[in-house]
Amino acid sequence: MANFFKDNDDLRFYFEQAIDWDAIVSATERRLGEGEAFASVDEAKEFYREVLHSVGEFVAEQVAPHSLAIDAEGVRLEAGEVVMPARLEEIMRRINDLELHGLCLPRELGGTNAPFLLYLINTELFARADVSVMAHHGFHGGIALAMLLLSLKEGSTRFDATSGELVETRFADYIEEIRNGRAWGCMDITEPHAGSDMAKLASVGEQQADGTWRVTGQKIFITSGHGKYHFVIARTEQPTSSDDPMAGLSGLSMFLVPTYEDGTEGRRRIVTVDRLEEKMGHHGSATAALSFDCAPAHLTGKRGEGFKQMLILMNNARLSVGFECIGLCEAALRLAKTYAAERVSMGKPLDRHEMLADYLSEMDTDIRALRAMAMVGAYHEEMAQKLEMQALRQRPEGELEQKRLERRIREHQQSSRRVTPLLKYLASEKAVEMARRAVQMLGGSGYIKEYGAEKLVRDAMVMPIYEGTSQIQALMAMKDTLGGILKNPRGFVKKLAQARWRALSAKNPLERRVARIAVLSLSAQQHLLTRTAGAKMRGLAGKPLGEWPAAFFENWDPKRDFALAMLHAERLTKLLCDDVVTELLLAQAKRYPEREIVLERYLERAEPRARFLHDEITSTGHRLLAELGETDSGHVAAQ
Amino acid sequence: MANFFKDNDDLRFYFEQAIDWDAIVSATERRLGEGEAFASVDEAKEFYREVLHSVGEFVAEQVAPHSLAIDAEGVRLEAGEVVMPARLEEIMRRINDLELHGLCLPRELGGTNAPFLLYLINTELFARADVSVMAHHGFHGGIALAMLLLSLKEGSTRFDATSGELVETRFADYIEEIRNGRAWGCMDITEPHAGSDMAKLASVGEQQADGTWRVTGQKIFITSGHGKYHFVIARTEQPTSSDDPMAGLSGLSMFLVPTYEDGTEGRRRIVTVDRLEEKMGHHGSATAALSFDCAPAHLTGKRGEGFKQMLILMNNARLSVGFECIGLCEAALRLAKTYAAERVSMGKPLDRHEMLADYLSEMDTDIRALRAMAMVGAYHEEMAQKLEMQALRQRPEGELEQKRLERRIREHQQSSRRVTPLLKYLASEKAVEMARRAVQMLGGSGYIKEYGAEKLVRDAMVMPIYEGTSQIQALMAMKDTLGGILKNPRGFVKKLAQARWRALSAKNPLERRVARIAVLSLSAQQHLLTRTAGAKMRGLAGKPLGEWPAAFFENWDPKRDFALAMLHAERLTKLLCDDVVTELLLAQAKRYPEREIVLERYLERAEPRARFLHDEITSTGHRLLAELGETDSGHVAAQ
Repeated sequence: MANFFKDNDDLRFYFEQAIDWDAIVSATERRLGEGEAFASVDEAKEFYREVLHSVGEFVAEQVAPHSLAIDAEGVRLEAGEVVMPARLEEIMRRINDLELHGLCLPRELGGTNAPFLLYLINTELFARADVSVMAHHGFHGGIALAMLLLSLKEGSTRFDATSGELVETRFADYIEEIRNGRAWGCMDITEPHAGSDMAKLASVGEQQADGTWRVTGQKIFITSGHGKYHFVIARTEQPTSSDDPMAGLSGLSMFLVPTYEDGTEGRRRIVTVDRLEEKMGHHGSATAALSFDCAPAHLTGKRGEGFKQMLILMNNARLSVGFECIGLCEAALRLAKTYAAERVSMGKPLDRHEMLADYLSEMDTDIRALRAMAMVGAYHEEMAQKLEMQALRQRPEGELEQKRLERRIREHQQSSRRVTPLLKYLASEKAVEMARRAVQMLGGSGYIKEYGAEKLVRDAMVMPIYEGTSQIQALMAMKDTLGGILKNPRGFVKKLAQARWRALSAKNPLERRVARIAVLSLSAQQHLLTRTAGAKMRGLAGKPLGEWPAAFFENWDPKRDFALAMLHAERLTKLLCDDVVTELLLAQAKRYPEREIVLERYLERAEPRARFLHDEITSTGHRLLAELGETDSGHVAAQ
Repeated sequence: MANFFKDNDDLRFYFEQAIDWDAIVSATERRLGEGEAFASVDEAKEFYREVLHSVGEFVAEQVAPHSLAIDAEGVRLEAGEVVMPARLEEIMRRINDLELHGLCLPRELGGTNAPFLLYLINTELFARADVSVMAHHGFHGGIALAMLLLSLKEGSTRFDATSGELVETRFADYIEEIRNGRAWGCMDITEPHAGSDMAKLASVGEQQADGTWRVTGQKIFITSGHGKYHFVIARTEQPTSSDDPMAGLSGLSMFLVPTYEDGTEGRRRIVTVDRLEEKMGHHGSATAALSFDCAPAHLTGKRGEGFKQMLILMNNARLSVGFECIGLCEAALRLAKTYAAERVSMGKPLDRHEMLADYLSEMDTDIRALRAMAMVGAYHEEMAQKLEMQALRQRPEGELEQKRLERRIREHQQSSRRVTPLLKYLASEKAVEMARRAVQMLGGSGYIKEYGAEKLVRDAMVMPIYEGTSQIQALMAMKDTLGGILKNPRGFVKKLAQARWRALSAKNPLERRVARIAVLSLSAQQHLLTRTAGAKMRGLAGKPLGEWPAAFFENWDPKRDFALAMLHAERLTKLLCDDVVTELLLAQAKRYPEREIVLERYLERAEPRARFLHDEITSTGHRLLAELGETDSGHVAAQ
């Protein structure tokens, strides 16, 4: 029997060896051996393994074989309701039978209380079979978790003070429905005139005389938008002028809006599906344009904090997309590999042709690199969230304990935040690249539908767009990185000095090579910061480091000061990816010598690439900025 | 009125200024001012301009607006015959009204006798509107020209000895039919088990007792395969063993096979359309799987020279694909540009956001680079073919004149051969890249069908596959380049020395920069050659240059000796592209100072890239070859 988990050595390496299950299980289970909790970490791991074996077999045997048919049939709108292919309905029923919708929900809510990481591995397995099926599947459990998470954040979830057990949560009924496969939800953000630029969102949430809320507006590009529960971002604070800060992100609030109203005359649809988009791919996933006309809505969290809440949900979503992309990459590699091993050309199988062997080797190495990033990002995100929840369940005793826990949470959050945009960026770009490679390696057969390669490209193309475009990820990564330097210039200088030292004198030659990539990354950052702020930054040279931040932000004009960094944000992001990946693979190689080969293969490609990106960042861009009229003359003259 | 020629400054620059119409017109028209010929080059140019104005308006007004509908409807097979969208039929009728099928045919065959270059510009214009419409259009005039070309080569076209007028040609009737829009043809090469590897072709051509030929076999991926005339490559020489040279390319012959047989009982279909492929894109173009069962066939040229004839036709086809790709790139750029100018995000239009402005600028610059390559490649190909035809029309008087003409033809052929695979490679890769960029810049709107961006990706994806994959182009470019060095090592050493000298001492700083790219390209070539042949090449170091070729080919084992070059062929090809493009743009900048900016913009991107490619070629690859077990131990140890 085909099994997408069992046949994947790299994935099993993480599951069996590299994932710190001790930490995750003890953060996930309140008390091992008590009540329904597992008796030990090993017992928990045994259960998780069984889940992945079941899912691995299910997706390989019952999803993947129907992927092309689901793509060909697609979803359609009939009399205002979305009709999904019968096979997809059947798959969703079986997912329900496998109890996957409640995989990560606490036992108190009828769930399996499995780690979020298990859900993410599940995501990779499903996506390898079909990303559009995965997307729809994800809007079940993912939305149920979002309901719990936002309720936790707003304080509407109550725990028993002694046992720490969850006693009630605001959206328990909805969560129950989803867990039983009778409903799913969606995230309604984008509007016709507001995509990446959320400050322009125009849907409104209005409070009625009785204190209840109603939402009115239009939303587009809503994945699984035919769901029963909508997380909707809408404007609750109307600005008085365009300078009013409420005109932007801070005037937004988050609502949970049910699609139907059940009255005495039966069920009435309130949220209208205006149309389904005809998309390039993802045909098993409905992408809806929706209208809300005074739809009764539950405000979640505080007024005006909608953007902040969205960021919380978005982080999980971006990790999920990262794992989805890895699944798609895996599908592309295996399709290309199988074809290349079988097809003989010029006297030998394609995979013995040097250029094609090079493609396959690069794909294989890149997937391992992505998985290293994904696992680390997921681990930290999970730990941060689980420790936060732990703190809510049972407040730690003593201020010192409290502080210690807060610091741990913050550290995990920072680690997750460092990796997540890089993962979303790199995994989605690689998904497109590898799908394209698969088509190319299959040649004419890659271009026709029956082999499935062209579907991978069509499916992959949305990855760098949804849940924040690649460009948005790059800008976030750049701003976090350079902002981090401004906050702690002393720390940066020290980091650079250390990397230089390691590059020269580390005993392990692999460590020296990894440090050289870090040096390239750090010195590109330094270049962007000093060139970026031009004359201003040059003025900092004489000042003590501690005064940099204040001096830097004096007369701050982001448009002028950050133009070069905005221009090179994507190149910097690629360099940061190589930096992070080699650092992670080095840590792995030190613990597991058999993984050294992965680092070596990756380094061989990353080294010239990192030199190239550093070269591009430090030697180009001023011409274009001058053409855009955005540099002060100092920059141009400096060229 | 929209006009795809008039709105294109770069294209008009070539038409109005850069193209050497004097040379082309005088090679195309036998005697200016005589008979139907133009009175002067200016008159000819005026006529060509009118043609392009008409075509530019036609494609903008009557093709582009229907492109999405044609894509949605597609072609289908009904009762063995192909049905095209009604709109496409209508477009083909109008193309016929515009007399475009006979654009490049000699006047003696009812054609307009326009230069091939005009057809290629026409190709770009059509492709910008819709590549699949262009593909089908191209299999009219292109096949008529192929009929004439192969007849010329085999000597079955006769000219009047005094006037030089074409008196008869073997396929005159077929050409006439095509010119009148009543038929078209196709090129039937690929088979289920033979794609890039043509030596494996299994269709057979068998001579009957009466001397006539019949072709039997199956062909797949045949563009416009529902045509009336098929150029078919089939095996005529059955090998006695697998070592027999006839087992490969030299056992192939070229046939012209009509689809129908007209008998007393009416028309009977002989060539069967088994199915149409369901493709990712190119929905307006039929891609057929065909069966030939003892189909009566005309052998063209000599037995066993089918591969050679195919290469002749392939060269024109690859140039056409290059121009097609430029049209598609132009469509992608303009779609992205228009959207980015209109869509406001974070307070300014997208095209003022640095990263996106950088994308647009790169696309714009790359299109100009591609067009520079395409125009030069087309010019030399046209000149070579026209001078060859001239020689056939009227043998030059005297041996000296004859030799001079032959030398000119050879020089043009070499120049064309240098550029053509690079153009096919780069233009098709850029078409995919730019179409993808357009999707990305449109974000969610890029992913849905109504904006047309995703269609560009689907259409572009076949470009690096058909008419020889990118990988085949790269291998050809690499073999030609390294083979050229082996033939003339002294010339290579001189070229490298000259480039180094220019890089240091040329007065014009742009020339120094261009020379530095040439140095990187040449030294990468040198590296591949010396590393490639390993110990053998090192042995050459002491020998006089003149002895290199013999020593090199001694105990020649292409598998072992060329492995590193095969591995890096694509990287070398990219470097060769930057080398050629910068050389061409420099020549332009010297003649037209207003073009300096194009060179400068291109150089800024090409410089770090060329350093990177050189870096990759010289510092990587041995690990993979060792894994493939294909290097002698000397290489591995040398790392």
